[in-house]
Amino acid sequence: MLDKILTSPDIPERLLAAMRYSTLSGGKRIRAMLVYAAGLAVNAPMARLDAVAAALECIHSYSLIHDDLPSMDNDELRRGQATNHIEFDEATAILAGDALLTQAFEIISSKESELADHQLRKICQKLAVSAGSTGMVGGQMLDMLATNISLSAVQLENMHKRKTGALISASVICGALCSDHCSRDTIKALDNYANSIGLAFQVVDDILDVESSTEILGKSSGVDEALGKSTYPSLIGLKESKDLAENLYQSAIASIAGIGDNAAQLAELAELIVKRQH
Amino acid sequence: MLDKILTSPDIPERLLAAMRYSTLSGGKRIRAMLVYAAGLAVNAPMARLDAVAAALECIHSYSLIHDDLPSMDNDELRRGQATNHIEFDEATAILAGDALLTQAFEIISSKESELADHQLRKICQKLAVSAGSTGMVGGQMLDMLATNISLSAVQLENMHKRKTGALISASVICGALCSDHCSRDTIKALDNYANSIGLAFQVVDDILDVESSTEILGKSSGVDEALGKSTYPSLIGLKESKDLAENLYQSAIASIAGIGDNAAQLAELAELIVKRQH
Repeated sequence: MLDKILTSPDIPERLLAAMRYSTLSGGKRIRAMLVYAAGLAVNAPMARLDAVAAALECIHSYSLIHDDLPSMDNDELRRGQATNHIEFDEATAILAGDALLTQAFEIISSKESELADHQLRKICQKLAVSAGSTGMVGGQMLDMLATNISLSAVQLENMHKRKTGALISASVICGALCSDHCSRDTIKALDNYANSIGLAFQVVDDILDVESSTEILGKSSGVDEALGKSTYPSLIGLKESKDLAENLYQSAIASIAGIGDNAAQLAELAELIVKRQH
Repeated sequence: MLDKILTSPDIPERLLAAMRYSTLSGGKRIRAMLVYAAGLAVNAPMARLDAVAAALECIHSYSLIHDDLPSMDNDELRRGQATNHIEFDEATAILAGDALLTQAFEIISSKESELADHQLRKICQKLAVSAGSTGMVGGQMLDMLATNISLSAVQLENMHKRKTGALISASVICGALCSDHCSRDTIKALDNYANSIGLAFQVVDDILDVESSTEILGKSSGVDEALGKSTYPSLIGLKESKDLAENLYQSAIASIAGIGDNAAQLAELAELIVKRQH
């Protein structure tokens, strides 16, 4: 889907190359998988899920490109290859990120998304709120401000809920919103599930930054400590962090117990997120 | 409206300050005025126009913040004050831009916009296409690539149609799309009007960069020449550029002749754009 969308001859060649470079470079696609898993749990049509999954991956890619910039985390390696501004240049990387964010809203509002107008409205609102100043961008701002400052556990959770959790939660909820029949109770259950795995994702990220190697991660390891960033291991200890991840996993599984057999993929994804090695 | 929207206590303080700094700093508000003028010409409700005008100004502000960055145009002065990354820092400026772009889609999809779902869809699509990789961001990419390269008149027009024209055109069309009754003929007439003033806007910008002072412009003058950028005066001459602006103005006025008395504000805006001194 993304490969097909990111081919327009009307996009300047260098910009398109930079957009494709970061979006089609084989990330874990966890957000797209969450869209499909949540959508399948409530019998949403595939064409709609394709569009929403593509939009989520565009937003995720844009956020990685901008987070890696020299004035932000100044990272040179991502998914085992040079970051966007290293492969291209800073201006191109900023523009590729801007374009991918905008592309997300183009995708969901196109006729090809097959979303009903009222579904589009809810999904557009959820995406924008989750990605914007009170969500992901706000979380990145808090992260920038937290360098070399010790955060409390509450502050750390607040930062991660925005920076990573909001978009993960949006993936699950927007997948469900593609369905013509999704009860409020199901949305509530999915929201609980999403909040648990969203936080678990970050806790595991922090653990991997301590325990794993640059080679396995495909991005620089030990970065948090080098940048003087608060992490779960530094704040509550490594073993306690692993216990927290396990508890969040159990909580996620419990949240979706009432949804039925179609929720099997959601359970598998929760496991993937907590047990992953990179 | 923007002042009210940009107040959420959930936005990190520094990010909010940077968003407000560039958005509420007294720009010309031409895009918002075009939304209102086009909307009033087709009797669109004011609440909808407020939302769409705010969204357009958010997108415009974001584009200025990112265009001014060191890796882009490296400008230190905008609207008579320090650019965002000078007043704050580069990371904050990038994030404030990202947040403002996202805010635009949050505004139009909120219930408070009072847009009907089918209107939201069209407006969302128009905004995203105009602002994205085939529109404004694509135009900025072409502009970056064109430094120290001589463009042909066709290439220059193509660049400007995207970089400035697309969002100006979107302002007019999205204003009209707020109406419950807007014929295809009217949209077509407004589109012609918008294309003419969009290009005129840029031609006049190029003329002012040559003829005006930094003091009057509120941004650095003579920048185009210093950066080796192709402009209308450098390409076709100063007098010819002024003739072109006048012809585009006449063409814009002719386009809206059939719309009726309510189009008076659109005519005034065309004059404002062509006759402005900054």
